[in-house]
Amino acid sequence: MATVPLLQDDDVSAEALAVFNEIRALRGTDYVNNFWRSLAHDPGLLRATWDRLKVVMAPGALDPLVKEMLYIAVSTVNGCEYCVHSHTAAAKAKGMTPEMHGELLAVVGMAAQTNVLVTGLQTPVDEAFKA
Amino acid sequence: MATVPLLQDDDVSAEALAVFNEIRALRGTDYVNNFWRSLAHDPGLLRATWDRLKVVMAPGALDPLVKEMLYIAVSTVNGCEYCVHSHTAAAKAKGMTPEMHGELLAVVGMAAQTNVLVTGLQTPVDEAFKA
Amino acid sequence: MATVPLLQDDDVSAEALAVFNEIRALRGTDYVNNFWRSLAHDPGLLRATWDRLKVVMAPGALDPLVKEMLYIAVSTVNGCEYCVHSHTAAAKAKGMTPEMHGELLAVVGMAAQTNVLVTGLQTPVDEAFKA
Amino acid sequence: MATVPLLQDDDVSAEALAVFNEIRALRGTDYVNNFWRSLAHDPGLLRATWDRLKVVMAPGALDPLVKEMLYIAVSTVNGCEYCVHSHTAAAKAKGMTPEMHGELLAVVGMAAQTNVLVTGLQTPVDEAFKA
Amino acid sequence: MATVPLLQDDDVSAEALAVFNEIRALRGTDYVNNFWRSLAHDPGLLRATWDRLKVVMAPGALDPLVKEMLYIAVSTVNGCEYCVHSHTAAAKAKGMTPEMHGELLAVVGMAAQTNVLVTGLQTPVDEAFKA
Amino acid sequence: MATVPLLQDDDVSAEALAVFNEIRALRGTDYVNNFWRSLAHDPGLLRATWDRLKVVMAPGALDPLVKEMLYIAVSTVNGCEYCVHSHTAAAKAKGMTPEMHGELLAVVGMAAQTNVLVTGLQTPVDEAFKA
Repeated sequence: MATVPLLQDDDVSAEALAVFNEIRALRGTDYVNNFWRSLAHDPGLLRATWDRLKVVMAPGALDPLVKEMLYIAVSTVNGCEYCVHSHTAAAKAKGMTPEMHGELLAVVGMAAQTNVLVTGLQTPVDEAFKA
Repeated sequence: MATVPLLQDDDVSAEALAVFNEIRALRGTDYVNNFWRSLAHDPGLLRATWDRLKVVMAPGALDPLVKEMLYIAVSTVNGCEYCVHSHTAAAKAKGMTPEMHGELLAVVGMAAQTNVLVTGLQTPVDEAFKA
Repeated sequence: MATVPLLQDDDVSAEALAVFNEIRALRGTDYVNNFWRSLAHDPGLLRATWDRLKVVMAPGALDPLVKEMLYIAVSTVNGCEYCVHSHTAAAKAKGMTPEMHGELLAVVGMAAQTNVLVTGLQTPVDEAFKA
Repeated sequence: MATVPLLQDDDVSAEALAVFNEIRALRGTDYVNNFWRSLAHDPGLLRATWDRLKVVMAPGALDPLVKEMLYIAVSTVNGCEYCVHSHTAAAKAKGMTPEMHGELLAVVGMAAQTNVLVTGLQTPVDEAFKA
Repeated sequence: MATVPLLQDDDVSAEALAVFNEIRALRGTDYVNNFWRSLAHDPGLLRATWDRLKVVMAPGALDPLVKEMLYIAVSTVNGCEYCVHSHTAAAKAKGMTPEMHGELLAVVGMAAQTNVLVTGLQTPVDEAFKA
Repeated sequence: MATVPLLQDDDVSAEALAVFNEIRALRGTDYVNNFWRSLAHDPGLLRATWDRLKVVMAPGALDPLVKEMLYIAVSTVNGCEYCVHSHTAAAKAKGMTPEMHGELLAVVGMAAQTNVLVTGLQTPVDEAFKA
């Protein structure tokens, strides 16, 4: 259960409803997921988050599927259950195959492991990496 | 400074030296970076880490550059200075442009932000994401 | 479900019951929340935690509501579901309005974002900040 | 050393320079700190970060000093050296006394401690906190 | 609910079933826990994880119970609910008493607390520790 | 550099000096390390931290070396450079051999890896672990 109620369309401000409708239009679905409904208590934060997310996740030098996988990686390390579920679903919708999912997890696991090895050893950064 | 001395070729066991030489051969360089030199105190851990890293980072369903960028994302969230430096250098060597680097950072930043928003709100996972 | 049973008043040692009763007296309620009931398996740890919490959260140079909000911030970054819920409830009881809650989340989100940007960039600390 | 060069005024794009100048104007100082100089490689990310930071940290339902202390709390848990230094300096400039600093650290330490106790115990959230 | 189905024996590849059977043989039980069943979607990752876990957790310079307690400590800081439950159960099976459990939690709590104090203070490492 | 000056004996309050002297007496050395010198700005926090640390790290159901290794594990996951250095030095002083150090790092690395695998898979906790 959330620390705030999940707001339905009838409960939100006009500013928040406008964001809900932009989400619907961009995604081509009537469904607005819980993250936005919990964020709608603060219409300014909802608007700023949505406006920025749209830009950051749009196609660019990296394609949207790579961006979703990076999002999964970060959310996994941060232990965010909701985010792992929502972005894994999004990545699958954008074409992530089981093989890609498996490799993604393998890289995240390897990185988590060598991160702590390096930290435990306090290995100094090679000059070569700073060039 | 590391919690263990960085071992030079003359200081390591035959088992560790064999790993150093495999690293050299695969990478086409005589240079062995500090991570492996600090890990060489435990030849079994060195061997297991190298053998696994080789497999995980090899081309597969994901290309090596995407894997490096996932590695950067994980290392950044974990706050591993060494790993951020070494994998950013590796990603650049594999073709990461400044534009890709910028977008990578933007996604990592966005994910870190929404991760804490979700956690602060304790948003419940949508049933739709579990299907 | 906890890794230990939640102890009821009849199950705990005299030392633990004394802490439960101090919690009741200070808070003006008969209710003792699950954290203390799970901690009661180790009366020494229960006692030390309660004694210290009382001091740390008391009014001082910072007022108790600011302290609760700091507690929420830390608990959010650490991904502690229980702690986010309990301290959000406590902050609301001490006067945190929806506007304050929204701003708190916005700051936590902004900080989480710039933390990873700085780490990904490995920005060196300005001399000016060290003065 | 950063993973990108710290850009000086002569090196940045017009868009980045405009942000630098807004920072100078708002803060009433010619000094632009390293975070912005390292972020200037991606003018869009620089602009978005600055524009959002300005809004989030402005006086509102929470006063700017409380916001700075929340920023320190998050940055501390995330282990961001740069951010701890820069926001501790900012908080002192906004009136954080040594007593307030000590209490801030005490709360952060207490929260970090009970966060892991709860996680180790896997204490279930009280129904009372969800009401 | 997992992001992948939990595979039963009839659903897995021959390679994954072989790992399941090795787990059964080593542990002397027919029960294969959910971690392995969720990992079985990627037989290579399943195999590599099991082969390495067997080696790492075997008796050596540290006894298996100490290793389980270290595993609990790491899993607790990482906020991994599944891992805290599974390794707490494993540690109890290997002889962890309630007193040991309590002391383990007390040390983890103390460390988490001083970690953030040090980070908030940015205390420089003593030369004496580097010798 | 710390966010506060490291206080020398001549600079501290009588209350802080008393703690310094207790540290010296218990450890049988005149040396007081930087953590305590940075914490001395807040004598109450210094006193509470030292009093609790003494109790938590004393011999009990777990021996002091196991406690130091748990401390290293937590500090490593939290990325606390100072704490990794100080507690690795302390563990060596209490008898941690290179073999033990290597196994400690291997367990921490394995746990960090499976923690993120479980989180990425969102594996549900087995009923068997809750019994």
